[in-house]
Amino acid sequence: MTAATAPPPAMTSVRGGGTGASEADLLAEVVGLVGKDLAACERLYAEELASSHPAVRDVRDHVAKYRGKRLRPILTLLAGAACGGVNAKHHTLAAVVEMVHAATLVHDDVLDGADVRRHVATVHSRWNPRTAVLFGDFLFTHAFHLAATVDAAACRAIGAATNAVCEGELTQIHERGNVDLTEAEYFRIVAGKTAALTAVSAELGAVHAGADAATAAALRGYGEDLGVAFQIADDLLDLVGEEGCVGKTLGSDLVEKKLTLPIIRLRDRLPHGKVQELKALLADPTADARDRLLPLLKQTGALESAAATARERAAAAIARLDVLPDSPAKGLLERLARFSVRRGS
Amino acid sequence: MTAATAPPPAMTSVRGGGTGASEADLLAEVVGLVGKDLAACERLYAEELASSHPAVRDVRDHVAKYRGKRLRPILTLLAGAACGGVNAKHHTLAAVVEMVHAATLVHDDVLDGADVRRHVATVHSRWNPRTAVLFGDFLFTHAFHLAATVDAAACRAIGAATNAVCEGELTQIHERGNVDLTEAEYFRIVAGKTAALTAVSAELGAVHAGADAATAAALRGYGEDLGVAFQIADDLLDLVGEEGCVGKTLGSDLVEKKLTLPIIRLRDRLPHGKVQELKALLADPTADARDRLLPLLKQTGALESAAATARERAAAAIARLDVLPDSPAKGLLERLARFSVRRGS
Repeated sequence: MTAATAPPPAMTSVRGGGTGASEADLLAEVVGLVGKDLAACERLYAEELASSHPAVRDVRDHVAKYRGKRLRPILTLLAGAACGGVNAKHHTLAAVVEMVHAATLVHDDVLDGADVRRHVATVHSRWNPRTAVLFGDFLFTHAFHLAATVDAAACRAIGAATNAVCEGELTQIHERGNVDLTEAEYFRIVAGKTAALTAVSAELGAVHAGADAATAAALRGYGEDLGVAFQIADDLLDLVGEEGCVGKTLGSDLVEKKLTLPIIRLRDRLPHGKVQELKALLADPTADARDRLLPLLKQTGALESAAATARERAAAAIARLDVLPDSPAKGLLERLARFSVRRGS
Repeated sequence: MTAATAPPPAMTSVRGGGTGASEADLLAEVVGLVGKDLAACERLYAEELASSHPAVRDVRDHVAKYRGKRLRPILTLLAGAACGGVNAKHHTLAAVVEMVHAATLVHDDVLDGADVRRHVATVHSRWNPRTAVLFGDFLFTHAFHLAATVDAAACRAIGAATNAVCEGELTQIHERGNVDLTEAEYFRIVAGKTAALTAVSAELGAVHAGADAATAAALRGYGEDLGVAFQIADDLLDLVGEEGCVGKTLGSDLVEKKLTLPIIRLRDRLPHGKVQELKALLADPTADARDRLLPLLKQTGALESAAATARERAAAAIARLDVLPDSPAKGLLERLARFSVRRGS
């Protein structure tokens, strides 16, 4: 039974369980299937970032501490395994997508002025903003350098994806404080800043396992849907997560005046008389903005509506995999999609 | 007669003329030889940065105003012309190296907190630091995307050069305030932050004109020597330039505690008793640090010594061109090297 026919349980709690399987269980199964490949990817990652300068090594080792669950390399490796088998190019490309992701994290943190990422001091708070900007650049350029060891097509795909990430982020910055942001604009930003990289991660996994064009496109679509679902879940976590689990300050999207899906849905559900009040709060958020909005987000069903959209996108991701024969890797890709909408961080 | 046998006139004034030919004359001759190619490069540059988002286009058009003399694309095109002829790949690669350079400028400005670049407001002062960081990323990723339209080898070469640029810049940041920076460390930083990109610009021009390995290596060496000469001239300009011509605040290296060659030479020439006083000033520069140091820089010959090194590197660059048959393009590469050490900005 796939989530396309039976969506995972309601996730208004976001961290809500219900299916039993924990993140640790899922990760353990991923490691069981592609653990050696993940290790090879990690080695390539470390080799590419070798530096003769101790200061560069210090920053690199520090950033390694706050890397996350390796979602993007896992997508590349599982897509490869599900489409015909993992080879050395997958190891390289998995390292590339993780490096691009790390670059965007380092730059995001300096842009957000965040002091902590996954419970670890950010580069700009441990060193300074200059080091953070330059180390992000260092990660970007090494990612491209490493991609170039595969072939020009991989470079083009990674280039196009990172272009989309940057354009999504630039648009998001530009739209900060726009309390009239539409859902279409929101989804356009998310398609760039989050889904472009998950899409190319899965697509390149398929391509380099010898998948035909239709299968590669399906895996690309899977990565895109998964990325959108993942981002909406992230938006929800920023509103209703537990600070200790999320590993960063809650309500930061409100503080940064980034309109996320639950807030857009709230705005569009409020009676006319209340909308101006909400917009005033969004335009000039108070310290307790999140506490003030939470009851409204629940009462109007805005929270549950955004969660439902996340589940729908996760289900759509899973439906894309119908082109593939059953395999342990396909099963894990399905579970990853379900998991993307009910994770803790 | 080449500068290898007869170096250009002394440049302690940096802007000092003497050879007669102005920058405008030189640029006019470059345009006469490769003007159509430069125009093709500009078109590719603009096409690659096309964006559907008006805000992205605004930033792009603004940054176009403070681009400089197109030194790097000119190196690619002249190297191509001198090694067998310019083709479409040169146009692409010329756009790529210019885009990488623009990316580093945008990030440098936000790192330096500079408000003005070439008399134009910087991105972070016109918009905000977030936009500057993201637009720099946007330029980097588009440069790689464009490079991938040539071939994987070009991607690798551009990747390796940009890695070196980032590592040079990271090292420079780390060494800020190190009043004991050695000449060797200074040259290592410059080899990365400036010379890596000029080296690959000339090298790729040669490679894609069908040059053999020895010729490509000679052109790479030319670009490297030229880059170092250019950087030393830049260091000198920061000390003895005219603010109106340089287009940025003078003495900024001192303010940012970056030790440059003239300052290192001054430190190493001062009598022991004076060195501690100098180091104290460098470690905690006063507003009039530049005014206080200028007489010392002149009296000790530190300024002239650094200028002589710049001339030597320019002469070395020219000597590298001995492998090439005489041609108008070769003549312009020689003049460009001479000019690099006596420019106004």
